[in-house]
Amino acid sequence: MVVEIRTRLDPIEIDECLTLLADHHLGRLAVVADGQPLVYPVNYVLAGRQIVFRTDAGTKLYAAAGHQVAFEIDGADPLYHDGWSVLVVGRAHEEKDPVRLREFTRLPLSPWASGPKAHWMCISNGAITGRRLSHAGKD
Amino acid sequence: MVVEIRTRLDPIEIDECLTLLADHHLGRLAVVADGQPLVYPVNYVLAGRQIVFRTDAGTKLYAAAGHQVAFEIDGADPLYHDGWSVLVVGRAHEEKDPVRLREFTRLPLSPWASGPKAHWMCISNGAITGRRLSHAGKD
Repeated sequence: MVVEIRTRLDPIEIDECLTLLADHHLGRLAVVADGQPLVYPVNYVLAGRQIVFRTDAGTKLYAAAGHQVAFEIDGADPLYHDGWSVLVVGRAHEEKDPVRLREFTRLPLSPWASGPKAHWMCISNGAITGRRLSHAGKD
Repeated sequence: MVVEIRTRLDPIEIDECLTLLADHHLGRLAVVADGQPLVYPVNYVLAGRQIVFRTDAGTKLYAAAGHQVAFEIDGADPLYHDGWSVLVVGRAHEEKDPVRLREFTRLPLSPWASGPKAHWMCISNGAITGRRLSHAGKD
C-alpha cells in the first residue's frame, strides 16, 4: 500500500507575514556578487515594515548596500511536512541618518557574530510575501 | 556593568560540512531572476557531494537550471548565540540520465510541497564552505 501525504501551498496574508517577521530574529539574506547568488544567516529585527540588521564594513553583506536583495525566514516541521516561509524582496541600503541610528541602537538586535558591526543596513519598502505548506488530506 | 558576550566565526572543515548536509533535509536555495535574488526553502538530500532536490516545471526553481545558485543550511541557538551555516555555491542542472534518475527515486526525498515535482535538480561540484559561531569568552 502506498500512502501519499498531499500538501498544498497557501499564501500568507501580509499581516501574518509581519507578525512572523516580528516574532523571529534569524533570517537569511541573499545577495548577488558578480552574478553569483550568495546566502548568509543574519540576525535582524523588524522596525515597522523594515528589515534591520548590522554588518561590518568590508563584508559581502555590506556590499549589498544599494542593491536588490532577498531576505527569507521559514519554519518547518520535517515530520509532518507543515511549514511556512516569508520572503522580503527589495533594495538594501545603509542607514546614515543620526536620528534613525539612535532609534536603531535601542532595537533588540544581536548581530550573528561580534565585531564592530558599524553599519546598520535596512531593507525598506520591500515586497513581502509568505507561503504556508499545509496538509491537504491523505489518499 | 556592561557584559558583552564575544563571539567569533570559525571555518568548518569540509568533512563536517558534508556531515551537516547529510544530517539535514531542509535548506534554502537562492537563484537570480532578472537580476533579483530570490530565496526558497527546499527539501533536499545529499548524494555524494551533490545537493539533490525536486521541482515542478514552470517554477522559478526550475528556471535555476543551468545557472549559478547558492544553497544554504544553518542551525542556531538564539539564546546562546551559537550557530553554524553551510553554503554550497555552484551551478544547478536538471538530471535527465535515466540511470541516475532511477537512483534518485530511491533517495529519501520529500519535496517541500506536493505536485508532480517531475524535475530532479542537482548542484554538482559546488564549492562547499561552512562557518561556526562560537563563544570567545566574556569581558
